[in-house]
Amino acid sequence: MRENGLAVLVIGGGPGGLEAARTVAALGTPVVLVERRHRLGGTPDAEHYAKLTHHFRDAEEALGELIAAVTSQPLVEILTRSEVTACEGEVGNFRVTIRTPEGMQERTVGAIIVATGFQHFDPGRETQLYNYYSFPDVVTLSDMEAMLKAHQVVRPSNGQPPERVAFIQCVGSRDRQIGNEFCSKVCCGIASKQAIEIKQQLPNARVFIFYIDMRMYGYWENELYWPAQEQYKVNYVKGIVSEILPKGDRLLIRGEDTTMGRPMEITVDLVVLSVGMEPSSGTRQMARLLGIAQNKYGYIEAGGPSGLDPVATSRPGIFVVGAAARPADLDDTFATAGLAAARAVAALRQAPVAAD
Amino acid sequence: MRENGLAVLVIGGGPGGLEAARTVAALGTPVVLVERRHRLGGTPDAEHYAKLTHHFRDAEEALGELIAAVTSQPLVEILTRSEVTACEGEVGNFRVTIRTPEGMQERTVGAIIVATGFQHFDPGRETQLYNYYSFPDVVTLSDMEAMLKAHQVVRPSNGQPPERVAFIQCVGSRDRQIGNEFCSKVCCGIASKQAIEIKQQLPNARVFIFYIDMRMYGYWENELYWPAQEQYKVNYVKGIVSEILPKGDRLLIRGEDTTMGRPMEITVDLVVLSVGMEPSSGTRQMARLLGIAQNKYGYIEAGGPSGLDPVATSRPGIFVVGAAARPADLDDTFATAGLAAARAVAALRQAPVAAD
Repeated sequence: MRENGLAVLVIGGGPGGLEAARTVAALGTPVVLVERRHRLGGTPDAEHYAKLTHHFRDAEEALGELIAAVTSQPLVEILTRSEVTACEGEVGNFRVTIRTPEGMQERTVGAIIVATGFQHFDPGRETQLYNYYSFPDVVTLSDMEAMLKAHQVVRPSNGQPPERVAFIQCVGSRDRQIGNEFCSKVCCGIASKQAIEIKQQLPNARVFIFYIDMRMYGYWENELYWPAQEQYKVNYVKGIVSEILPKGDRLLIRGEDTTMGRPMEITVDLVVLSVGMEPSSGTRQMARLLGIAQNKYGYIEAGGPSGLDPVATSRPGIFVVGAAARPADLDDTFATAGLAAARAVAALRQAPVAAD
Repeated sequence: MRENGLAVLVIGGGPGGLEAARTVAALGTPVVLVERRHRLGGTPDAEHYAKLTHHFRDAEEALGELIAAVTSQPLVEILTRSEVTACEGEVGNFRVTIRTPEGMQERTVGAIIVATGFQHFDPGRETQLYNYYSFPDVVTLSDMEAMLKAHQVVRPSNGQPPERVAFIQCVGSRDRQIGNEFCSKVCCGIASKQAIEIKQQLPNARVFIFYIDMRMYGYWENELYWPAQEQYKVNYVKGIVSEILPKGDRLLIRGEDTTMGRPMEITVDLVVLSVGMEPSSGTRQMARLLGIAQNKYGYIEAGGPSGLDPVATSRPGIFVVGAAARPADLDDTFATAGLAAARAVAALRQAPVAAD
């Protein structure tokens, strides 16, 4: 095989970037991995994920294995607290400027993998949705992850464990009014997983999930939904929540039970908003900087000339992984990371040797 | 890079196997691609798919591009009308027997990718579900694909175009009684795509979709559901269909409208059963032959030691792609094909040079 010594640049050190970096290196190609934060791990690390929706694996442990696989790879150079600030050139010869704590660095790389991921929908952004910013006992999926990880599921208002918890699904997803018509795909599964974890940590709590429909695709029905229903007695209520009001020191949820076709009111101690996915600020920023097309939601447009390539961007030699292109679960993220790694290494093989 | 000259064996010449073969070859590694049928293309070809759910691309054209990319690759050897009949050895040194039209062949390969896909649920298998085998005007999604491709959407009983068509969702999926609790993931999207195509070919037809819930994850909500609702006036009815009866020369659908909470009856000319996915006979057969674990549905168990690797099987050096491991859409299939290709080539790099 012709060796031109060129590296692949991977932008983002979360699950997608780590898997891409590991796979590129496993194919014998050097990698420069750039991560804005001070450490690897991405959103699952930054937001203190408890267990992964996959098989309830401990997130820190699973991610630790992946990080170790990358950091132990001599072919991977890791730049944390670093950011790509400029990029010119083309496949086989991208000249990239990276701001690092030690100053600006220039690198020539053959291909680029963008793994800049998502951020959770901010329920305060548009309309102070469900009073997230006013009521301390209204939290998000991310807040709940951190509480589960710390084994401290409490009402923020008083530090006491809640007796009744309600999840509200599709906050910031499937909502044409705010421009996010897409379904974030994973929130049904994550809410069910969190409901199970809450019941494991607080067996006497009652947990409700208010949903539009439960998108338990593939095996999630069996892995998450039925155990939640049958073993953990989670109450799934098909309903639309219209408002959350204070009621003494608790919260009153008002809406419509759409199965029964009648109004409902229920009092709880803690509300969890199942916030959806949006493209991260890093995804938007890198898309602009790299000159690759975004869709109307700000995600990086994938498809390529065939329309069918889940990692091709609008520029040859630049590939996109996981949730930087669409709402994605971990399987999607790892699989697209592998495809992007293979495409990037193949692009290097085909590219003319760089001129410099 | 050390070159040991070993090839990767890809079993299955559908979208997943083609993408895997193309990607392995793009990484400079030889491929032996084994396909049981007389030609490449897999289920989309065998079942005469009309348009792909992705972007309504013409299936034959899109698949043709992929096939051309593989057949034009000098590193890919293609064996059609062929079947793997034995396998021994281990990663880096699998000795495989292949039955070909020219007789038995023995090959040594370094890694194996299983891309044997799915088959559609047979609605007659268990209980003569919805009278598929008695009523000619009860057809399946696959039957409808072939009619759409031929631009001949007709009632099989009389050859006339239908005035009223009804899709029934979740036939063979999400059904604990028959042992398929899993959601086949793609049928909601495919039914919506077919409904749109029917309206394009027969603008005066009325089309109903009876669903449990519409699993329009990611972008499908916008790409399929809203156009079907708003532009093509497809009637989505949340309901459970209990039986289909003859009514004159038409069909009477009986069930419950679950939104209204009341019984419903509707007369149509043509019923389309949205049959789900099951592991193909080839998937079951290859799993046994290769000695890799299957889950309780017969799909190949994926996950590997971490539980998180979507292409790792229970045997090192054997990888699984797309719908051989779980209900999968085309994105899933291409992405896992890429990851499997990268893993297989990496496995060859790490394996000791074969002894023979």
